[in-house]
Amino acid sequence: MAFFGMSKVFHVAAVQMRCSADRESNLENAERLVRAAAADGAQIVCLPEIFTGQYFCQSESVEGFRLAETIPGPSTERMQSLARELETVLVVPLFEKRSEGVYHNSAAIIDADGSLLGVYRKMHIPDDPGYYEKYYFTPGDLGFRSWTTHFGRIGVCICWDQWFPEAARLTAMSGAHVLFYPTAIGWHPGTDPELARAQHEAWQISMRAHSVANGCYVVAANRGGHEKPAGGNGIDFWGRSFISDPHGRLAAEIEGDREGYIIQQVDPSVVDHQRVEWPFFRDRRIDAYEGLTKRFLDAEDAPGG
Amino acid sequence: MAFFGMSKVFHVAAVQMRCSADRESNLENAERLVRAAAADGAQIVCLPEIFTGQYFCQSESVEGFRLAETIPGPSTERMQSLARELETVLVVPLFEKRSEGVYHNSAAIIDADGSLLGVYRKMHIPDDPGYYEKYYFTPGDLGFRSWTTHFGRIGVCICWDQWFPEAARLTAMSGAHVLFYPTAIGWHPGTDPELARAQHEAWQISMRAHSVANGCYVVAANRGGHEKPAGGNGIDFWGRSFISDPHGRLAAEIEGDREGYIIQQVDPSVVDHQRVEWPFFRDRRIDAYEGLTKRFLDAEDAPGG
Repeated sequence: MAFFGMSKVFHVAAVQMRCSADRESNLENAERLVRAAAADGAQIVCLPEIFTGQYFCQSESVEGFRLAETIPGPSTERMQSLARELETVLVVPLFEKRSEGVYHNSAAIIDADGSLLGVYRKMHIPDDPGYYEKYYFTPGDLGFRSWTTHFGRIGVCICWDQWFPEAARLTAMSGAHVLFYPTAIGWHPGTDPELARAQHEAWQISMRAHSVANGCYVVAANRGGHEKPAGGNGIDFWGRSFISDPHGRLAAEIEGDREGYIIQQVDPSVVDHQRVEWPFFRDRRIDAYEGLTKRFLDAEDAPGG
Repeated sequence: MAFFGMSKVFHVAAVQMRCSADRESNLENAERLVRAAAADGAQIVCLPEIFTGQYFCQSESVEGFRLAETIPGPSTERMQSLARELETVLVVPLFEKRSEGVYHNSAAIIDADGSLLGVYRKMHIPDDPGYYEKYYFTPGDLGFRSWTTHFGRIGVCICWDQWFPEAARLTAMSGAHVLFYPTAIGWHPGTDPELARAQHEAWQISMRAHSVANGCYVVAANRGGHEKPAGGNGIDFWGRSFISDPHGRLAAEIEGDREGYIIQQVDPSVVDHQRVEWPFFRDRRIDAYEGLTKRFLDAEDAPGG
């Protein structure tokens, strides 16, 4: 609760990578990129959504469920060792098998001492051609969360969540100074270039707007590369991981879909100052937001004619 | 409730103007610009926030309250005549005197037959240096609304509301295909150019993100020009009125702060299609949004550590 410049800065990173069908090589690749980012000063590193494999949700197949693992489980433990060694916080997205028939699209939040601080389970589950996630993922039941890590208080949402201002708001309201969005998003090959550009721009400005509305940093970590594990045309994952500052400015971005990482300094005093400069939290009309918990406002619920 | 291309298109416009201290000349100027936009095909025209005068909220003075009028009242009636004559829907922002000591920052929604369809009263009231609105404006008590006009279903929010995703969401949920934002926003003279650029960009992307999140059109009508009714340095109103489409694309924009208008076709079938392509309304986690009606999530309310 420091005021303007009395709190400690830290550095966050988004890792962008391409993912193969081989779990071991994906884990090795992720580890290599995390090590590089940490050597460069990153203290909290976020990996892309379910980076341990290709994006299997391009089709519905019972085989897909074989890719899941428990949290904690082998990948979590491996990343816990890495976090401990590097003294780095890690956001590790995994396909979680919670129980027979209960699978989640999750992220393990691992603190810098290697402890498993918590789990986020993707709340908003998409389902559209090539992204058949409702078949695989039970909607999360842990809500929108923040965790106090060794370096700062962070929240995690996953991919489709990024389109919902409600998710960003609730995560920020739970205390996060940084919202991490592990992501797997791309274009259907052959998408009209103007539409492709508009899709990417809509994606980016939506998350930058979360920064503005909530006066916080946003880190989006996406995968790159063309994948077609299910045949068909596959998906061109567009990469373009980025970090926006509490003013919504693009602070760091990876051009195109190459592998790599970006690092950004997070200054909690900038969050503190921004939320006083633009005091949106002060002015929310909580007496008038009840409708947000409804599906839609039909004529009988909607004010006006 | 048509599906993909069976509904009627219409044309909306934002008027951008400079405002003097003389109410009569502002009304004449607004009328001139509305006539021009209507002659150009606009069927729903939005004027900037409290366009009948200069932005008096730059200081706190009892004198400011003298500028208020009732709705209906002289300006509403004049605009009702204009709407009837031109067969055009008008969104007419006015400083409303509702009763002794109860004043609102409002907008009259006038249908194309000249009838007063409804009133929106600004829900989120800012207060920061140069924008002392909490002194003048009682927060609105009519909620977030939509109205079915002769041409299409629209909602209206005002200025500061534009920073709150909750306002856009609730207005869209009440059925609006177009969200109108009459606005009075500008720079403090001498603002660092990079910061000024960032402020404008944050403003624009926040509203474009409302288009994305809600699959609807957004129309922002701002004023231009330098005003210093209270002395001091005044405000450079930045103009740059714009319209975004349901994909969040910038569809029309007035460069700089010159007077004029922009017109955009609104196709309800594009809203219909966009909300199927990107089905965010389907996937909202209304079971997990209760926290949005709270001021903040303190440790005891917040999930996570």
